[in-house]
Amino acid sequence: MVRMDENMPFLLQYENVAWYENGKVRILDRRIFPEVRFVECTDYHEVAQAITDMVTQSAGPYTAVGMGMALAAWQVKDKTEAEQMAFLKQASYDLAHARPTTANRYGQITNRCVEVAEKALAEGKDPIQAIVENTVESMNRRYSTMQIVGDHLASLIPEGGTLLTQCYGETIIGTVIRAARKQNKEFKVFCAETRPYLQGARLTSSCFASMGFDTTVITDNMVAYSMEHGLIDVFSSAADSIARSGHIANKIGTYQIAILAKHFGVPYYVTGIPDQDKMGRDDIVIEMRDPTQVLRYRDIPNTLPEVKAIYPSFDVVPPHLISGVVTDKGVYVPHMLNTYFDTEAKQFY
Amino acid sequence: MVRMDENMPFLLQYENVAWYENGKVRILDRRIFPEVRFVECTDYHEVAQAITDMVTQSAGPYTAVGMGMALAAWQVKDKTEAEQMAFLKQASYDLAHARPTTANRYGQITNRCVEVAEKALAEGKDPIQAIVENTVESMNRRYSTMQIVGDHLASLIPEGGTLLTQCYGETIIGTVIRAARKQNKEFKVFCAETRPYLQGARLTSSCFASMGFDTTVITDNMVAYSMEHGLIDVFSSAADSIARSGHIANKIGTYQIAILAKHFGVPYYVTGIPDQDKMGRDDIVIEMRDPTQVLRYRDIPNTLPEVKAIYPSFDVVPPHLISGVVTDKGVYVPHMLNTYFDTEAKQFY
Repeated sequence: MVRMDENMPFLLQYENVAWYENGKVRILDRRIFPEVRFVECTDYHEVAQAITDMVTQSAGPYTAVGMGMALAAWQVKDKTEAEQMAFLKQASYDLAHARPTTANRYGQITNRCVEVAEKALAEGKDPIQAIVENTVESMNRRYSTMQIVGDHLASLIPEGGTLLTQCYGETIIGTVIRAARKQNKEFKVFCAETRPYLQGARLTSSCFASMGFDTTVITDNMVAYSMEHGLIDVFSSAADSIARSGHIANKIGTYQIAILAKHFGVPYYVTGIPDQDKMGRDDIVIEMRDPTQVLRYRDIPNTLPEVKAIYPSFDVVPPHLISGVVTDKGVYVPHMLNTYFDTEAKQFY
Repeated sequence: MVRMDENMPFLLQYENVAWYENGKVRILDRRIFPEVRFVECTDYHEVAQAITDMVTQSAGPYTAVGMGMALAAWQVKDKTEAEQMAFLKQASYDLAHARPTTANRYGQITNRCVEVAEKALAEGKDPIQAIVENTVESMNRRYSTMQIVGDHLASLIPEGGTLLTQCYGETIIGTVIRAARKQNKEFKVFCAETRPYLQGARLTSSCFASMGFDTTVITDNMVAYSMEHGLIDVFSSAADSIARSGHIANKIGTYQIAILAKHFGVPYYVTGIPDQDKMGRDDIVIEMRDPTQVLRYRDIPNTLPEVKAIYPSFDVVPPHLISGVVTDKGVYVPHMLNTYFDTEAKQFY
């Protein structure tokens, strides 16, 4: 089983993302990092709930749903094969639908877990072990494809320049760090803190800073100031959906940074692999989360009880605000992203 | 002594802003409201420090510097007249310079306190009482002028529409609420929460919600989403500096909301009285605050210790992004704001 390089940041170590062992899945609680606390799940429903609750996010759930499938297999290990397969199919559905915007991506992973479990059972092998191995393979496959993306992105940042990030792109963060080392490239990082969960402050800045990058956090309302003062050379974000039309969905706030980038002439690069099953913006489902999460911080209320909030988890950036979509096949003009599928796409999830 | 209407929100009651009594100035700590806690000062330097530390902000310091002057007078009440006047002049300088961007405004108030103290002493009256009365008069004068501004602003909000605010405009919040009642006008309010101190969430939303307005808080990165979805009809902010060129400075983030408003065709109105002594943007000093305030929340760190931050307290909006500057003399085309001074300006501070 191949694990992540030991010299990668704590947050990117596979076993800190989500890990199955002996009837338990352990997930790092990213909502309170840099405080280190793990959520332990002994039932796959708890894994699904942890994803819904954003204990882990970005690419974290891709790992968590796989490990959740291993846990599901453990829960029924003493049942008949037919019962095991029925349970795993239900778990696959439940885990895939833990969050709506990325259900298509989660489903690709959980469906494959069902297949490898079925094959293992047919061959008299351990389905739990088969699912864990498949999940690690999927992580390695994503890292290997995203390394190409990270290499492209690093090339797009001017030497000594500053990259602005939004939220936490997980895999791309790891691979662009590797790429910078490989290319012997120096750049600085500005992280928008990304309320309400502050993934930019908590997670992205931690990865870059712990790897020796000059890293600065700004509140989400300092983007125009930073761009006006020439502090930003490139804006880049990952995406939770990349439709073939060039519309992308990413953490709430990405849209307005894209508008500001256009206003100030800062290029905006989206990184990731397009979603073959999403034609345009109508295929992107925006998850509306519990608005009370906007009204408090670490359980301290910020407002009077009668105040309301909204909490759209993502927003959609139209292609005209995107300078390029950085994929494993190269950097696409957003309006021509559909041509990504003119040649065969590698398995990614 | 005229006090604020009893039916105005808690935050706008004069004695909750900053109040001198018996050798003490009591200032509501807005950094933790809706938790109610007062900072008590027994030395005018503590009042200056409280302003620097943003215990109170927006128009709060206009009151606090006056009450701080009363406290300074109390500190030297048993000294000779000459000693009292020397001390008050030093206090006037120190209080006026508690924050750089608004030092000109604070100075107008503290200088007048020096004058009324001198006059009181010459007439054998109590200088402390004279300073307190002068400070309350200044508040009443500002409320009376800003009521005209509030009336104009209320007229600019479409019936049943939604006003987006940034930070906490204090006086304009009180007067637009009064104006809405007077005009029998209904509107809804969206408050950008305004990191890092969340004045929008803590203060502005509290004023509107407690007065029965339909009030919604959004994180600072939800502005584009809200405008795109037609949730905002008008954006308005107060300003810590209004230069005669039409450049204004307001809480960090105002600039990017102005850019987004232009992008989405939402009008942006600045409210307030132009600064006669500020010709253009070069006369606006942007206060850079302690960046560690961006990296933590209520003393809980959000990042690893090696991560840096910046914290510009304000940003400058150029006139081409402003639909109108709403003053007591009417609504000005920003590029023609200089004409405000073609006719005599009333005393404001």
